[in-house]
Amino acid sequence: MQEFFTEDIQQLNKLVRASFINSLGGFKSLVLVGTRNSNKQENLAPFSSLFHIGANPALCGLIVRPDEVPRHTLSNILETQEYTVNHVNEGMYFKAHQSSARYASEDSEFESVELSPEYKHGIMAPFVKESAVQFACKLEQKIDLEINGTILIIGKIIYVNIPDNSLCADGFIDIEAAGTLTLSGLDSYHSTTRLARLSYAKPGSWPKEI
Amino acid sequence: MQEFFTEDIQQLNKLVRASFINSLGGFKSLVLVGTRNSNKQENLAPFSSLFHIGANPALCGLIVRPDEVPRHTLSNILETQEYTVNHVNEGMYFKAHQSSARYASEDSEFESVELSPEYKHGIMAPFVKESAVQFACKLEQKIDLEINGTILIIGKIIYVNIPDNSLCADGFIDIEAAGTLTLSGLDSYHSTTRLARLSYAKPGSWPKEI
Repeated sequence: MQEFFTEDIQQLNKLVRASFINSLGGFKSLVLVGTRNSNKQENLAPFSSLFHIGANPALCGLIVRPDEVPRHTLSNILETQEYTVNHVNEGMYFKAHQSSARYASEDSEFESVELSPEYKHGIMAPFVKESAVQFACKLEQKIDLEINGTILIIGKIIYVNIPDNSLCADGFIDIEAAGTLTLSGLDSYHSTTRLARLSYAKPGSWPKEI
Repeated sequence: MQEFFTEDIQQLNKLVRASFINSLGGFKSLVLVGTRNSNKQENLAPFSSLFHIGANPALCGLIVRPDEVPRHTLSNILETQEYTVNHVNEGMYFKAHQSSARYASEDSEFESVELSPEYKHGIMAPFVKESAVQFACKLEQKIDLEINGTILIIGKIIYVNIPDNSLCADGFIDIEAAGTLTLSGLDSYHSTTRLARLSYAKPGSWPKEI
């Protein structure tokens, strides 16, 4: 085994440290966030910091760095209060990765990486047509994390689109069957293989496969 | 495809909605958080809401519900300012799942689910010996998310333990090789298969496998 203490982490080269710390938190949600500004200029950017906050109301969080590539994502969300979240599958992960490049403001990442914007149900932000699992959020709260200047965006889920037959009777969505990938570190893409679903845990007996 | 709007989500049965919304955010980090109170009573609980906040300083976030099973996790972190984060592998995921059961306050989940507490380097909180990837955090900030009563715990990473040969020269930690699993929904456990690591994205050329 290899051990690292606070000083060892601080002394790492900046890019090495970014990759190291980003790997450490485990596998991550990998999504494309679609937005549009009030001039209808589209933006698309990959995020790996989406997390669950609550189911009632249905809320999710997203960490945004004001100084990195997806900066248009932040300004567009603040301007229009809406964004879409789109899962990434094997047929499009090169394109999803490429959407993190620093394209000029006037370029749409959709066009640059050859993904298709999809508009529906009066939602202003573009979905990614190639994504099997899509949802839309309305901005509920913006919290500045003063500890490092990042921003927590809290969104309420207002629309969900999932493939036929992916929803189980108990509410579970089989995102593996839908082809959703996961990310580790900054740039490592993985498919998944289910080991099991386990029954609700109670003291005194072991969980069963369900 | 199947579509759901705000009202459809609200009308779902409470348990169905929890599973549905928890599935929607994509694959999740799956970790065991180890803590101890000032009387040295140990606690262990699974979390799927760990996320990256920044690399310099090395910060991660964790969403805690004050009213659910891992409530001892929260009170212990606030009491001692320290906690450990331990990846879950195939040899222990039944035990990790079982640690979410509502054990009595005086019971240690370590003992109940047959995982081994490990103490080292003067860190007060217990690590999980069976975990190949382990790290320790010092509490930096607690933010109450008034929107639904959950709590964001921000920790600074003060110690890291990873397996030999899992660290690449560029800082990437191969957590797949280390056996780390991922979770979808509330109870679905998955192993992973790397498709590729992709080179840093730049406008004008497609990324390459690295």
